[in-house]
Amino acid sequence: MVFDKGGQGMSTTNRAVVLLSGGLDSATALAIAANEGFEIHALTVNYGQRHAVELEAARRVARAYSVARHLEIAIDLRAFGASALTASIDVPKDRPEDVMAQGIPITYVPARNTVMLSLALAWAETLSVFDIFIGVNCVDYSGYPDCRPEYLRAFETLANLATRAGVENQGRFTVHAPLILLSKEQIIERGRALGVDYGLTHTCYDPTSHGLACGRCDACAIRLAAFARLGLRDPAAYVDSV
Amino acid sequence: MVFDKGGQGMSTTNRAVVLLSGGLDSATALAIAANEGFEIHALTVNYGQRHAVELEAARRVARAYSVARHLEIAIDLRAFGASALTASIDVPKDRPEDVMAQGIPITYVPARNTVMLSLALAWAETLSVFDIFIGVNCVDYSGYPDCRPEYLRAFETLANLATRAGVENQGRFTVHAPLILLSKEQIIERGRALGVDYGLTHTCYDPTSHGLACGRCDACAIRLAAFARLGLRDPAAYVDSV
Repeated sequence: MVFDKGGQGMSTTNRAVVLLSGGLDSATALAIAANEGFEIHALTVNYGQRHAVELEAARRVARAYSVARHLEIAIDLRAFGASALTASIDVPKDRPEDVMAQGIPITYVPARNTVMLSLALAWAETLSVFDIFIGVNCVDYSGYPDCRPEYLRAFETLANLATRAGVENQGRFTVHAPLILLSKEQIIERGRALGVDYGLTHTCYDPTSHGLACGRCDACAIRLAAFARLGLRDPAAYVDSV
Repeated sequence: MVFDKGGQGMSTTNRAVVLLSGGLDSATALAIAANEGFEIHALTVNYGQRHAVELEAARRVARAYSVARHLEIAIDLRAFGASALTASIDVPKDRPEDVMAQGIPITYVPARNTVMLSLALAWAETLSVFDIFIGVNCVDYSGYPDCRPEYLRAFETLANLATRAGVENQGRFTVHAPLILLSKEQIIERGRALGVDYGLTHTCYDPTSHGLACGRCDACAIRLAAFARLGLRDPAAYVDSV
C-alpha cells in the first residue's frame, strides 16, 4: 500500500484505475496519480446516491484531466436500504466537530468502499492494470471504518489473492491512498499545488435541485472550514444563504 | 471461516445472507444454511451473465425454500469487458479434465466473487446479519483464484475491518463456504440428503434460448460426470442430443 509520495513525479507510462466520485478528495487523488505519471482510467460508481450531481462533477474532472477513459457503472445500493446518502433519512446538519465526536456517522454507507474497490479491481484486472487509487482519508473524518489504513491493506491482500492477475504476478496489485494521512487543509494545499480546480468538484450531501451545495451538511462544513483555515474562498457553488 | 459442519443441525434463529446464483452449488449451500437453522436472505447478483436463465433458477430455488427474502441486484460487469461469461467469446467445449489442466479458465470473471461478497456484505450489514454463505468449491475446479480458502479467509478479515458492524462486534462476520473442500459428487450427495431438487437448478454456461443446458460446456460436463459417477440421472433439462 502506498500512502503519499510527497509530490515526486514519476516518468513511467503505467496505467492506474482511479475511483472518481467527483468530490474534492477523489479529484485530488486523480491529480496526484496523473502527477506520478500514471495514465488515468477513471471509474465512477453510481450507487444510487441522492447527490447525483456528483456524477456531473466527476465528468467535469475527468474532462479537465483528459483521462484515457472515464467509465461509469451503475449499481443500486438503495436496494439494501440504510444510510442517509442512499435512503430517505435526513442528512445531519451538525458542526463537523460534533459530527466527528459521534463516532461512525449516519451518512456511512454499508461496505461502500469495499464495493467500489471490488469494482475497481474487476476493471483493473480486465485492463491488466495493477495500481488503484482511492481518495479516502482518515484524519479529518475517522468515523468510517473503511477509510482506515488497516482496511486498505486488507483489501490489497485480498486483491492479490482474488485475481488471476494477482496470482500470476505475485502480489503486484497496489492500493494507493495518497490522502489517507492528510488533513482536509493539506489535501487542498496539495491539490492546489497540482493545479486542481476545486470549482469543478462537488462535495455536498444535500444539494439543491440546481446542484448548489447546501453549506450546512457535515461534508460541506468540513470543506468550508478547511478553505477558511487556509484563508481561501471555496470556488464551489453554494446556496446564497451560506 | 467455516468450511463444513458435517450436517449437524443448529437450533438458533440466526439469519444468514446466502449468495444464490441458481446453480447446483449455491442451491446446496442454501440448503446447508437452512439445515443449520439460519433464516435465509438470498442474494442473486445479475452481473450481465449470458446465462440469464440462471436468474430463473435462482427464483425457483428461493421459492422452494421459502426464503425470508430473495433480493436481486443488477450490476453490469460487461462494462468491464473480458470473460466468456459476460462478453461474446466462445464458451469452451472441452472435456473437464482438459479444462482443469489449462489453469485459470477463460470463463473466469475478473474479481467476480469479490464483487459478489462485497454486495453480500453490504446487505448483511444493513440487516445486522453476520453470516454469509457462498457455494464456492476448490476441489473440482481449482482454476479460479477467488474460490480458494485463503481468499475467503482474506475476505472475512476484510469484512470485519470494513464495516461498522464488524468493528462494533469484534470480528463477528463469518464467511461460510460449506462446499469448499467437497468434490462435485460429494456436493450432490450432501444436497440430496437434504432434499435439494437439482431439477430446479441451472448450471450450463451456454444454454439454448429455451433454457435447456447444452451438456457440452465445462460446467455441464463436470456436472454430468458427477451424476454419472454416482449412478444417478441429472434431473436438469438438457438439449436432446446429450
